[in-house]
Amino acid sequence: MTYITKPIRVRYSDTDQMGYMHHSNYLRFFEIARLEWMASLEISYKQMEKNGIWLPVVSAEVYYKTPSYFDDELTIKVKLEERPMASLHFSYEIHNQHQKLVCTGLTKLAFLDAKLQRPVRCPKNLFEALKPYF
Amino acid sequence: MTYITKPIRVRYSDTDQMGYMHHSNYLRFFEIARLEWMASLEISYKQMEKNGIWLPVVSAEVYYKTPSYFDDELTIKVKLEERPMASLHFSYEIHNQHQKLVCTGLTKLAFLDAKLQRPVRCPKNLFEALKPYF
Amino acid sequence: MTYITKPIRVRYSDTDQMGYMHHSNYLRFFEIARLEWMASLEISYKQMEKNGIWLPVVSAEVYYKTPSYFDDELTIKVKLEERPMASLHFSYEIHNQHQKLVCTGLTKLAFLDAKLQRPVRCPKNLFEALKPYF
Amino acid sequence: MTYITKPIRVRYSDTDQMGYMHHSNYLRFFEIARLEWMASLEISYKQMEKNGIWLPVVSAEVYYKTPSYFDDELTIKVKLEERPMASLHFSYEIHNQHQKLVCTGLTKLAFLDAKLQRPVRCPKNLFEALKPYF
Repeated sequence: MTYITKPIRVRYSDTDQMGYMHHSNYLRFFEIARLEWMASLEISYKQMEKNGIWLPVVSAEVYYKTPSYFDDELTIKVKLEERPMASLHFSYEIHNQHQKLVCTGLTKLAFLDAKLQRPVRCPKNLFEALKPYF
Repeated sequence: MTYITKPIRVRYSDTDQMGYMHHSNYLRFFEIARLEWMASLEISYKQMEKNGIWLPVVSAEVYYKTPSYFDDELTIKVKLEERPMASLHFSYEIHNQHQKLVCTGLTKLAFLDAKLQRPVRCPKNLFEALKPYF
Repeated sequence: MTYITKPIRVRYSDTDQMGYMHHSNYLRFFEIARLEWMASLEISYKQMEKNGIWLPVVSAEVYYKTPSYFDDELTIKVKLEERPMASLHFSYEIHNQHQKLVCTGLTKLAFLDAKLQRPVRCPKNLFEALKPYF
Repeated sequence: MTYITKPIRVRYSDTDQMGYMHHSNYLRFFEIARLEWMASLEISYKQMEKNGIWLPVVSAEVYYKTPSYFDDELTIKVKLEERPMASLHFSYEIHNQHQKLVCTGLTKLAFLDAKLQRPVRCPKNLFEALKPYF
């Protein structure tokens, strides 16, 4: 099971001098996708951080297939790759408005007790909300 | 009296599809300049924030004269425009490696007690360090 | 007469360590607003650039009133301040989801013949499309 | 054989609300490293682009080990992982001012004839300059 984002427009400031969206921005798009997904499950990442649980990125991979350009509309499919324990493992596929595959990717994020700076388990409400997806 | 930064190279990721450094990045360059200046006066902005004094930007102006390009080396002149009281008022001039004027600008920053979210006066050590410049 | 954008969410990557949206990003938001406005008038900025007319920013001012935070939803009002001749002069007001004023701003942009790198007049189709607004 | 960059300071605008350098910025730092290396070999990437050879990123991986913070000084080791043919395969290690490993990474970049948008071989001058490193 997969979550699909609303289309996200490539901004002028996202481009570089090749006219491509700069390759680093895809990591920001992955982040938008997973946060939009959590919001759609009524999980507030903002609240989770206020509760002292952080979710830093532990690893990230991007495989670029076709460039995107200013004003393109990108849609991101996100999937959970594993049952969430101490970390979340997402995979991504980005398509443009012509249904062309722009890139794929993977990220791992680890739950962190912000005060102790120590790994913790996935918060219960998030685990429950994600259950249909793993 | 003026502080002049070390040359700062325009990064590939700073460019946009016109091949220019994106105009929003000059505000980041102004920030680099004032922080480098403070560091040269042995004022750690990082420590100031840890001590609970923040310095958010209250207003900013940029007047763009000539574009800058990937790999350009920009030098920033910073000046204090006023004796620091509750705020710092800087002016900037950026030149490229050909001594051409790239842009000028102004920023005002206000001292803020981070906990109370209330304006405060310029910390004493910063005021003293800046004395030769106003 | 004024154009009002769809709400734009502050992204996690827009924040800085104060927890504010970094002040440089407002210039990117102003850009989104004016391009969304042009698109709503069926003016493709992308096409205009392909036709060899660029629209670089000549000056920009931002007056910050209240910070914005991750997940805030910002709405931008754009207005034309002057009849477009060789340049476009916009003013902006950004409000958050609590209808609080986040910042105001001004930008001037100049029409440029990209090949000759020389100023030109506002393209006729854009001038006509903007007529109701000045 | 390895190239090691000059220390690169984490900018205030690189941070996010966790106080970490945002994870997407490491891809920009990898880019700085490989371009600085090429410059040190007297290969101008800027000139290469003007000659019609682009070098877009085809894949990227980052393994985050320890966060970096505002004002940290990062040093990047770059290595060629393979003899350059139609692509360049780099690996990276970033250390902070305490000699702590911040992250490791990999990128593949492909040579592209910009006009034809077709893959090409590594330009001869770059191949020769890199010879001691593979």
